[in-house]
Amino acid sequence: MRVSVIGGSTVDEETYESARTLGNRLADRGHTVLCGGLTGVMEATARGVAERGGSTIGILPGADREAANPYVDTVIATGLGNARNVLIALNGDAVVAVDGGPGTLSEIGHALDFGKPIAGLNTHDLPGIEHVETPEEAVQYVETTVEMD
Amino acid sequence: MRVSVIGGSTVDEETYESARTLGNRLADRGHTVLCGGLTGVMEATARGVAERGGSTIGILPGADREAANPYVDTVIATGLGNARNVLIALNGDAVVAVDGGPGTLSEIGHALDFGKPIAGLNTHDLPGIEHVETPEEAVQYVETTVEMD
Amino acid sequence: MRVSVIGGSTVDEETYESARTLGNRLADRGHTVLCGGLTGVMEATARGVAERGGSTIGILPGADREAANPYVDTVIATGLGNARNVLIALNGDAVVAVDGGPGTLSEIGHALDFGKPIAGLNTHDLPGIEHVETPEEAVQYVETTVEMD
Amino acid sequence: MRVSVIGGSTVDEETYESARTLGNRLADRGHTVLCGGLTGVMEATARGVAERGGSTIGILPGADREAANPYVDTVIATGLGNARNVLIALNGDAVVAVDGGPGTLSEIGHALDFGKPIAGLNTHDLPGIEHVETPEEAVQYVETTVEMD
Repeated sequence: MRVSVIGGSTVDEETYESARTLGNRLADRGHTVLCGGLTGVMEATARGVAERGGSTIGILPGADREAANPYVDTVIATGLGNARNVLIALNGDAVVAVDGGPGTLSEIGHALDFGKPIAGLNTHDLPGIEHVETPEEAVQYVETTVEMD
Repeated sequence: MRVSVIGGSTVDEETYESARTLGNRLADRGHTVLCGGLTGVMEATARGVAERGGSTIGILPGADREAANPYVDTVIATGLGNARNVLIALNGDAVVAVDGGPGTLSEIGHALDFGKPIAGLNTHDLPGIEHVETPEEAVQYVETTVEMD
Repeated sequence: MRVSVIGGSTVDEETYESARTLGNRLADRGHTVLCGGLTGVMEATARGVAERGGSTIGILPGADREAANPYVDTVIATGLGNARNVLIALNGDAVVAVDGGPGTLSEIGHALDFGKPIAGLNTHDLPGIEHVETPEEAVQYVETTVEMD
Repeated sequence: MRVSVIGGSTVDEETYESARTLGNRLADRGHTVLCGGLTGVMEATARGVAERGGSTIGILPGADREAANPYVDTVIATGLGNARNVLIALNGDAVVAVDGGPGTLSEIGHALDFGKPIAGLNTHDLPGIEHVETPEEAVQYVETTVEMD
């Protein structure tokens, strides 16, 4: 399936490594990853995916495809600014949120509005988010909930 | 100034009356209101504004201007679906959130991302939202914070 | 009714005066004008509208409402870049195109796609555009075609 | 490189076969194709690409990924309506237009606005479009112009 990974663009090393491991696990399980294509959690996850030979789609706020981090395989530039957040929430079968600030919060709101299951790793504490402790649990949660649909 | 009012499209009578009073107060103070143009909090606020001779801008998710509630003065259709939520967060000098579900949550995320002050009336409990008890306090909060900028 | 006026952002004096006269005439006839809110034809038309006490809505590509020309009454910032062109085509009952380059061409395409009547003053020569010689004829054409709907 | 192919959603057999051959040639030359993901020229091109083992990205106007034609490899749903046309124009290094009505015209306008080279096969007759007779010439034109950049 396709999993949207959302999270902060500026993160500490522990969060970066957590997102990278998440990318590893998602690719190991054969899932495609979709993200915002920039830095922080977006880069770490795409990097983790690439390390395992998987594939990442990055949807950028700006109009320049060159702004994507080097680990994204399919870059979609939008020029839509923050409205691209809606596309990130919409285009996954499920969402994993890692850390993150207000931009991630907006994506969580859109994802809940679209009825997407969301696993949360150390992110906003909100009803509708399944909080998990590890990347492995995040993958397991989204696999289980999407399968049940 | 211009105040974006966000909140649920399906609300109970108490919430409806609270949003209507909010519309009254915002119009009394000479503010323009901007909202999503549909039902529930959006309708109640626009109605409250109209009752005091004020003016409301409604930004619709769909492509048909006729979908707006009858109290909106300036209707902007978008056809952008939920991406119109970004425009609502962006186009106020401040935001008042009344009640609301995931769509409102996405607007709160976008508003925080844009650095807009947010007053909350019985809405999502999140850092960055100033929770108030009455429509009067909501108006007072947004007036004070915008003035300080 | 509401008339979207589209055209070049950099224009010669004759085109500027033509758009300004168009704004005069539209306001004289009680129509609201909607435009892209920036320079050139957008400014000239809004100025012409303001000279006759009318009202103009400006929908901006950027996220900053301050970028609008001073003659626009209701400014909607979008941050959507060129995707805001779609909103301009969508939100008029009819369109008048004055001069203009590729951005105007995109708006003409969207307007034709939405089934809007278009009057053209010295603009792209395309099937579906009614070419007229004067601002007065442009107003007359859009009034006649919208009435017939 | 990445080539955006735009054109009508309802086409006659000759146009369909022309777009299919275009897809064949683009894939043979190793280019990725991007299109609107639906019927007509979009389907024929994606089909032609798939026949040669290439890869097509489809950017849909609606919010449902299932609406894509079966030959698209990477589907991006947008829910943005016609504003998705901007993304199609933006995300190719070059554009080939085949036939097409007002939607295609809007994409041509956006592509010219973004400075993209456009080859045209039996499409709108406009300055800035290089009219060619065959799919092979279209591929040759976009390869030559992008290389020169």
